Amino acid sequence: MDFIAATYRLTCPGPEVERLSHDIALEQTVEVPDALIHSPALREAVVGRVISFSPVTNSPDRSTPGEQFDVRIDYPADLAVSGLASLLNLLYGNISLKQRIRLTDFQLPDSLLGAYRGPNLGVAGLRQSLGVHGRPLLATALKPRGSTAEQLASRAREFSAGGGDLVKDDHNLVDQSFDEFCHRIELCQRGVLEGSEITGRTCLYFPNLAGPAGELERRAEFLVKLGVRGVLIAPMIVGLDHVKHLADKYPLAMMAHPTFAGAFFHDETHGIEPGLMLGTLFRLAGCDATIYPNLGGRFAFTADECRQIDRHALQPLGNLRPAWPAPAGGMSYENLGQMATDCGQDSIFLIGGALLGDSADLRSSTARFLDRIVDLFPASTSSAPVTSEVVSACELPAARSVHRLLEHLRFVAGFRWDGREPIAYKTTEELPFRNVSRTELIGSTGEQTAFDLRYFEIGPGGHSSLEKHVHTHVVIGVRGTGTLVSGEKQIQVQPFDVAYVPPLRVHQLTNTSTEPFGFFCIVDHDRDRPQQP
Amino acid sequence: MDFIAATYRLTCPGPEVERLSHDIALEQTVEVPDALIHSPALREAVVGRVISFSPVTNSPDRSTPGEQFDVRIDYPADLAVSGLASLLNLLYGNISLKQRIRLTDFQLPDSLLGAYRGPNLGVAGLRQSLGVHGRPLLATALKPRGSTAEQLASRAREFSAGGGDLVKDDHNLVDQSFDEFCHRIELCQRGVLEGSEITGRTCLYFPNLAGPAGELERRAEFLVKLGVRGVLIAPMIVGLDHVKHLADKYPLAMMAHPTFAGAFFHDETHGIEPGLMLGTLFRLAGCDATIYPNLGGRFAFTADECRQIDRHALQPLGNLRPAWPAPAGGMSYENLGQMATDCGQDSIFLIGGALLGDSADLRSSTARFLDRIVDLFPASTSSAPVTSEVVSACELPAARSVHRLLEHLRFVAGFRWDGREPIAYKTTEELPFRNVSRTELIGSTGEQTAFDLRYFEIGPGGHSSLEKHVHTHVVIGVRGTGTLVSGEKQIQVQPFDVAYVPPLRVHQLTNTSTEPFGFFCIVDHDRDRPQQP
Repeated sequence: MDFIAATYRLTCPGPEVERLSHDIALEQTVEVPDALIHSPALREAVVGRVISFSPVTNSPDRSTPGEQFDVRIDYPADLAVSGLASLLNLLYGNISLKQRIRLTDFQLPDSLLGAYRGPNLGVAGLRQSLGVHGRPLLATALKPRGSTAEQLASRAREFSAGGGDLVKDDHNLVDQSFDEFCHRIELCQRGVLEGSEITGRTCLYFPNLAGPAGELERRAEFLVKLGVRGVLIAPMIVGLDHVKHLADKYPLAMMAHPTFAGAFFHDETHGIEPGLMLGTLFRLAGCDATIYPNLGGRFAFTADECRQIDRHALQPLGNLRPAWPAPAGGMSYENLGQMATDCGQDSIFLIGGALLGDSADLRSSTARFLDRIVDLFPASTSSAPVTSEVVSACELPAARSVHRLLEHLRFVAGFRWDGREPIAYKTTEELPFRNVSRTELIGSTGEQTAFDLRYFEIGPGGHSSLEKHVHTHVVIGVRGTGTLVSGEKQIQVQPFDVAYVPPLRVHQLTNTSTEPFGFFCIVDHDRDRPQQP
Repeated sequence: MDFIAATYRLTCPGPEVERLSHDIALEQTVEVPDALIHSPALREAVVGRVISFSPVTNSPDRSTPGEQFDVRIDYPADLAVSGLASLLNLLYGNISLKQRIRLTDFQLPDSLLGAYRGPNLGVAGLRQSLGVHGRPLLATALKPRGSTAEQLASRAREFSAGGGDLVKDDHNLVDQSFDEFCHRIELCQRGVLEGSEITGRTCLYFPNLAGPAGELERRAEFLVKLGVRGVLIAPMIVGLDHVKHLADKYPLAMMAHPTFAGAFFHDETHGIEPGLMLGTLFRLAGCDATIYPNLGGRFAFTADECRQIDRHALQPLGNLRPAWPAPAGGMSYENLGQMATDCGQDSIFLIGGALLGDSADLRSSTARFLDRIVDLFPASTSSAPVTSEVVSACELPAARSVHRLLEHLRFVAGFRWDGREPIAYKTTEELPFRNVSRTELIGSTGEQTAFDLRYFEIGPGGHSSLEKHVHTHVVIGVRGTGTLVSGEKQIQVQPFDVAYVPPLRVHQLTNTSTEPFGFFCIVDHDRDRPQQP
């Protein structure tokens, strides 16, 4: 049987530590008093086990609020098998409502860790996207709230033109409507690209993925389509497991903001250690970077706590990629040297006010800060960023769309629909598909559906690209006969046959007959881009 | 211009209160120092305004941790116009990372409050569903975790048979897979219904809506289909705005559990007042009931804090329905009288251990506790519960499902598919549809799709029910010809014609020909129930 090993620091009189420890083990698992557990099997499989408790010798620089004990409790791993939400609840759910219980550490068994995918890019992946190695990244925030989209885009362009690596939205910059969101993001993304054209280097823009919970996926989908590579997100506001869901579903790097998390940290006798939450838990949620209030800034973290966060972000954790520690605040041109010593090369220096206030010329200031960082890391290098994308006939945009929402699409001769033009592609030797046309029927013209309906036709000898993706396909045969290659399967698709392609299955549709092969393809409206097999 | 009035209690030396207040007003809005705000228009539209600060006279029973001040800060309402997540961030985002700042109150202007729908049922709605008036509700939890689904269902049945009003899952009861979730819920829901048949009264079952974030909507959809009227949910784990999204989307009552919220309460110099979070904020998120640890139980709330939560749950808040305070723990048969005095009739007595441990016969114990409550509220009454639902052939569950996920559904003679049986309904005079059969092709057997694909056939002279719903229909003609009546439109559907029915359009499909009319219907997997036109 596998266990989760949790360590709590209890502040209590010595004679009470044993009873309190057993109370925690019961509260977090069966939530009934010991006397009501009649089944030994239940006790064995469910109830937490107090493994040890040892008194803490407080270091003299800590104000000791009373006697303290480190208590280790082992929980059966099955209790957290339904995901990150259940893990949070198990480790610190009901006992958060008690007093003087601090979660200081936990270890997951491999059987649980294997279910977490972790950061999409992590340290190495983001370096590859940027082509930057051997030094910290220089990042800033688009400030202040209340600026126009044009003003923010201009700041993004100047930072990018000065050689900055990464610019994010302010975490409180939230657009009211989807349209405003799209408008602002398009401008800022364009600003960053314009700056990159000047430097010949990559600068990434991470917009704030915020807004009504029911609209986050639509916003994420828009960002992925626009070519945005990552976002800023607030896990304690959005919900940690919701962030994990978004990270798992979309090919976006997640930069976590600690807003609303502070009530867990301020009292050293209760809550959760900051490294454990902002480092380990956020990494389990798929965060590629974790912002924390740096020593000397406007907030109250100590040097020990800052290094603890760095450590949890970077240290081995199953097969999960390391995440970037991103100290923010308290940084100036003058203390970049100290920051370099404290944080090392694998960190994101998130410099807001000090950079914006450095001079009236953001481009020059950015270049000056970047030069200083490069000087501090003489072995750092730049290389061309690496990208790879599949060219898929299923997703290539139409040259121009003249379509509008129609409630009746009449089927007419030649397997066409009134009011809808097929999109056909020139076929060349280099392209991975051949002889394919697509007609968008439902979903791309403003219908309120969670799915899109398209009609595809593959001419004799033609084929779609060999690809895979997280979203599924449902295919309904309409005209002629074709073959769906789906993993090891070869499915002959006849008219009205229905076929299903599961997530991440490598697949291709081919037509080896002498007649056209036509089929409906239904896909989720919000879907990921095709990947190489 | 509208403002959100927030009140914070600061614990600090008197000479610092003014500076600290202005720091908060900046931190929560522009997040830059005052010196960097160059635009008077920006200052006017965005920056928080310190309205007043007054010293607190602490009551002698409170341990005074230092000098305290109540500070009122007004924020422009526009800053929280994009929803509950932005409101949380504005009121207590970054400053949660500071020290000795307690959010003690806030008031929203009507312009913002109007955007919140609040509880779906609230106090009056839940009373109507139960037919119980003039007394507190008797509720219990299915315990302990580790019990089999059959054991839990048996407890649900006994509690219902004893006359209990509401039984919920334990908040740590989370099913690993969707199938396990469905299996357990079906058993428990059946248990409650069996108990209700004995008493002739209604008992409601609120399952724990928990699991991976990406699967919550699918689980909610299943519950709605099963006829479940409400759920238990943990807002601080799921995310407060995510709960609001679920409450807005599904016709379910939300009973909020306070797990993982405690770090905001334990230190009276920091965090958020429990009434404000568990009462007001949870109500804004659409919670119909709010569970809190009762005085005398295993947790640390004071009598003042308990009454504060009651007050926030019930007091006027725009047009939002009042929510049920649900004290839990610390209750016994003996102190029901005291509870009645303290909490009044509009509360849910959530009695777990004391009821389960009362005797070996849960049915008798429930009856004994209920009798005592009825005695304490002699004016209480019971009446028949009120319900209203459309009977729709599109959504009626199959008598039994023998289907499983298949990657190839071969089309065979007679407009059928290998591996799929049509569901045909007996037609009677009372039913609002006639001569309809349905074949579930994709989406009801575990496919990872955001949509369902069904084949319907309407015999000569048949028709579907006249109905409307928020979800849309996409219809593709397959066999014969029929008519789609869609609002004022009459659309003749021929084979391969595609038709779209927009949200809330009143519609009906009819067959006036002498041949069968068959069509594919694609709908969102997560969808609302049909309503009367």
